Amino acid sequence: MIRHERILLGHGSGGRLTRELIEGLFLPALDNPLLSTLTDSAVFDSIPAGRPALTTDAFVVDPPVFAGGDLGYLSVCGTVNDLAMAGARPVGLTWALILEEGLDTQLLERFVRGAARAAEEAGVPLVAGDTKVVPRGKGDRAFAVTSGLGVVPPGRDLSDRNIRPGDMVVVSGPLGDHGATILAHRHGLEAEGLRSDCAPLGRLVEAALASGAAVRALHDPTRGGLATTVHETATRAGVRVVLEERALPVRPEVRATCELLGLEPLYLACEGRLVAWVAREDALRLVQALREEPLGRGAACVGTVEALENGRAPLVLSTRVGGQRPLDQLSGLDLPRIC
Amino acid sequence: MIRHERILLGHGSGGRLTRELIEGLFLPALDNPLLSTLTDSAVFDSIPAGRPALTTDAFVVDPPVFAGGDLGYLSVCGTVNDLAMAGARPVGLTWALILEEGLDTQLLERFVRGAARAAEEAGVPLVAGDTKVVPRGKGDRAFAVTSGLGVVPPGRDLSDRNIRPGDMVVVSGPLGDHGATILAHRHGLEAEGLRSDCAPLGRLVEAALASGAAVRALHDPTRGGLATTVHETATRAGVRVVLEERALPVRPEVRATCELLGLEPLYLACEGRLVAWVAREDALRLVQALREEPLGRGAACVGTVEALENGRAPLVLSTRVGGQRPLDQLSGLDLPRIC
Repeated sequence: MIRHERILLGHGSGGRLTRELIEGLFLPALDNPLLSTLTDSAVFDSIPAGRPALTTDAFVVDPPVFAGGDLGYLSVCGTVNDLAMAGARPVGLTWALILEEGLDTQLLERFVRGAARAAEEAGVPLVAGDTKVVPRGKGDRAFAVTSGLGVVPPGRDLSDRNIRPGDMVVVSGPLGDHGATILAHRHGLEAEGLRSDCAPLGRLVEAALASGAAVRALHDPTRGGLATTVHETATRAGVRVVLEERALPVRPEVRATCELLGLEPLYLACEGRLVAWVAREDALRLVQALREEPLGRGAACVGTVEALENGRAPLVLSTRVGGQRPLDQLSGLDLPRIC
Repeated sequence: MIRHERILLGHGSGGRLTRELIEGLFLPALDNPLLSTLTDSAVFDSIPAGRPALTTDAFVVDPPVFAGGDLGYLSVCGTVNDLAMAGARPVGLTWALILEEGLDTQLLERFVRGAARAAEEAGVPLVAGDTKVVPRGKGDRAFAVTSGLGVVPPGRDLSDRNIRPGDMVVVSGPLGDHGATILAHRHGLEAEGLRSDCAPLGRLVEAALASGAAVRALHDPTRGGLATTVHETATRAGVRVVLEERALPVRPEVRATCELLGLEPLYLACEGRLVAWVAREDALRLVQALREEPLGRGAACVGTVEALENGRAPLVLSTRVGGQRPLDQLSGLDLPRIC
């Protein structure tokens, strides 16, 4: 419980009000032994063997509460998923908040509960944090930055360098749900059934790797969606990818929203999906393993990897009518603040 | 080099403009093997033996450029110092930026150069990052969140639990320079000689510990200054501290600024000082070791630790005229946005 209904500048200044925020809100919701030391750094006695992985993500989503999640829940999922895509198991997270003076304290409580829920689902403690408050009009309710430490277990090697012509591209479920949900909210469209796919993917990754399939690399198609993620990966790996339009899973609600708003679902962010690059002979096994998990029910094989020939686009869509259309990276002017 | 003179929303959207920002600005300034993989997480082959430490800090300083530093430089120093106070040597940092649409690109370049300079001084790579852009009027030029992974070498144990009545409190230099500089800028006072003390403290900590002095705990007196930091530490350790007013080092420029603005230097942030809690018999040795370092020239022994008696204030100032005055925590309403 916090005494004030609205966040004051003093809540971010390190004095008594900051203390009230920590003791009245953060500690009760996020309690764990490392966080409760409230020292400058969280110090682990030990972490599992393997290669440590470190990542960070800033979250400025507007609106900060949406069907299927909120800023807090999203900000933990996003960072946990960045670790998972490297094959890392999460060890500890940090959470920094930049709040706008006047923020409704109940909204802040909602973000904290969301972050706590995501951390619990992902099985990782939030071990350190920081809160700053900026004057009214110098922020936008709340921004969150979540960083994560994980460990890649010995023997695991996920890397774009492993990708070879002949490999297949698999997605774990329907595309664009998060981006479509956010944009629908923003345009005042309340489409029935539209809901962010936001979820922590650690368990899904473990299932994928436990299947024995030769998974080369994993990525989460967040900002810029599947097309941007696959374009970047193909470019780094020096290969070409052909996506099969008819194989790409897109929910009818997402497709309808895209048609209304003039958007392309392949460029819409997912926050609870993965893209797996896998040896051709193991693609089916991987899809089956993913489908056995609640978050992977809609898994599908969506593309093939080819050798990159000079002057050809690294990513093309093989359309329903039999043509091929290059998918370029967007400039980025079109899709701000979906995460 | 970036093509645009001002930051656009698209620079934060994950598309082509984001790529230009990364390739045109971040990579050239911050280049290191882990960052340049540009993958979801930075994965270390290995890290030194010891206990891993994780920390995060958000920086919203206004103005973002000041005598002695800038947002970028400060944001790396602050996090490196949080690790150092745990006795941890930095292994890798992450850096997340939340930029306001319309930000002068040259200002962003300045922050990036500042962060790169601090990282180089601290001897730690910036291994992962993220940039988001919010619409004009929804941010304030730039906010930065820096997280850090470090390792506490085996055998090192800095903890408030180690503090005992009879211990001494040592500071590494004059107090309040950062806070006074920021507040002077904000009030349009251009005091000659006023300059932030902002600096990475890893080397100073190593020198302190190498002296052989029985250092119990270290803290950096940032938000809320020396009084707040010592108050918090004393409370956690269950002891009482008497600070000697005549021993507290404060530069004349800082004192003059405080008198003009009605502030108390003991509550002003430092960003390049440490507070060491040390066994009484080792206090002098520690002060001498600190004074041999460029960042510790002004080190001084400023207080003594006593047993906490029921109902007495955990922190008091023994004044020049011989009285004792309790120093309480401030509410925090008075000193926003100095870091």
